[in-house]
Amino acid sequence: MEYSAKDLLRLTQHGDRKALARAITVVENELPGYDSLLTALPASHIPVIGFTGPPGAGKSTLISALLRTLSNAGKKIGVIAVDPTSPFNFGSLLGDRLRMAEHFNNPHVFIRSLATRGSLGGLSEKIIEVTDVMRSADFDFIFIETVGVGQSEVEVAGLADTTIVVVVPESGDEVQALKSGIMEIADIFVVNKADREGAETLVNNLKKMMHHPKTEGWTVPVVKTVASQADGVLELIEKIESHRMSAGFNDKKYYLLTEKVYQLIRQSRMKDINREKIRLELKKVVEKKDFNLYLFADQFKK
Amino acid sequence: MEYSAKDLLRLTQHGDRKALARAITVVENELPGYDSLLTALPASHIPVIGFTGPPGAGKSTLISALLRTLSNAGKKIGVIAVDPTSPFNFGSLLGDRLRMAEHFNNPHVFIRSLATRGSLGGLSEKIIEVTDVMRSADFDFIFIETVGVGQSEVEVAGLADTTIVVVVPESGDEVQALKSGIMEIADIFVVNKADREGAETLVNNLKKMMHHPKTEGWTVPVVKTVASQADGVLELIEKIESHRMSAGFNDKKYYLLTEKVYQLIRQSRMKDINREKIRLELKKVVEKKDFNLYLFADQFKK
Repeated sequence: MEYSAKDLLRLTQHGDRKALARAITVVENELPGYDSLLTALPASHIPVIGFTGPPGAGKSTLISALLRTLSNAGKKIGVIAVDPTSPFNFGSLLGDRLRMAEHFNNPHVFIRSLATRGSLGGLSEKIIEVTDVMRSADFDFIFIETVGVGQSEVEVAGLADTTIVVVVPESGDEVQALKSGIMEIADIFVVNKADREGAETLVNNLKKMMHHPKTEGWTVPVVKTVASQADGVLELIEKIESHRMSAGFNDKKYYLLTEKVYQLIRQSRMKDINREKIRLELKKVVEKKDFNLYLFADQFKK
Repeated sequence: MEYSAKDLLRLTQHGDRKALARAITVVENELPGYDSLLTALPASHIPVIGFTGPPGAGKSTLISALLRTLSNAGKKIGVIAVDPTSPFNFGSLLGDRLRMAEHFNNPHVFIRSLATRGSLGGLSEKIIEVTDVMRSADFDFIFIETVGVGQSEVEVAGLADTTIVVVVPESGDEVQALKSGIMEIADIFVVNKADREGAETLVNNLKKMMHHPKTEGWTVPVVKTVASQADGVLELIEKIESHRMSAGFNDKKYYLLTEKVYQLIRQSRMKDINREKIRLELKKVVEKKDFNLYLFADQFKK
């Protein structure tokens, strides 16, 4: 049978995971009831924790370790995987998927993977809406895993109350890598695979760069983990909690809401345009002697 | 004195670099004459070569080596640096800047660095327009250097006739890194620092992944370079030329033009919105009991 948007939300709020899955599908695919579902979403204070960092940093393994610890403590966690390389997103090797199986069967854990926009990464078009639907359920935390590259970072930073940047000791490129955007978005740094050579250097570089408070009362901590052995997981959970308690935390709310609204506006305003349409129009005129890209583009600007 | 848009373009076409610099500034800052300059741009067939790849891959060193070889052969090259970590973009250490000095004084080379959008990387808002202005000058090649992360990759792939992805032997993460979007955009792969351990493995992995033709008559080649010694530079130039001669090359033109138009439309449609405006409106209502993000966003969607 079909549920109304309000029914779905009510069931979702009371822990019905089938209803949640259905609500997400409705939103992700703009099925009937899509708008009324979104506009009926209650205010939620469930913290959203974003995990980003380069592929191979071990984000999925770290999240697995956190899920194990938190669910053992009776916490409920919703996970959104948008990293195409993530085993949570079925985007990885069979071995990884098997390692994940424990969580797919864990009643305290709800995992939803989202297709990325195009084949080039970046977050799903509907990540904002899906996250807010997840936040209408009875979770203690929402985790979002995204491959931490460029624009995706901006987007996850615009979604997550606490952004955790996971890095690993690499061959001398750390400092440059940090220049390219990751630094600004990190609320917590995790140096994973901290048993690797070069870990101490990386930790010290990060601490040097992070010594001044990012927001009021919050200096970005650097946590060492070996996720495969769950080392450092408790300290990380502690840092997540203390970030939420920090003085500047509430200011971030406005930044996050502003980003969300900006993205929603952009999606809405670009709804009627698609590249195929542009392409077909182009084909008609591009060979003309006086073709000018900017005159051509004007017709679509409205 | 002030030049008209048409004057600036005429001077630019005839090699006046001051006029080019001025034209770029006009476009970048939307100064008077901005529109008429863009709509007066002639069709150009100057190839745009995009260089992307992770920070620390040695893109700048590779470009330096190419500039040396090409300018010695009498070629004129325009360089646009949008990588915030690039020495071309003054974003790097003094040592790097000094290494670049030879090119800043090279009459065959024109270098323009563009601010990135925000502190989080991504290409400059005006990269499309600036590139097209550069293409109205008397260059043989336009080089664009961008840090190859996420969305930026998509954008540079949407700008460049030939996209060169520069990678280096890393600690076992190559294959995953490639999953996250770089593969699709590469027309040519460069394995730089090919004297490093692991280079052969990386080259072989890439070749395996690239064995099927990407576009008609073009299988993505993998070129080994040691940019610091200019090793492999001639082979790379050869591959750039043969990519331009390949059967599928012309098809790409439509893809590039489509992407440009899409970006121009988006910029134009979002012009009247800025985050500060949203933020101020938010502050007024967000604490209200019945606040709903999606109802709030509707007022801006128009």
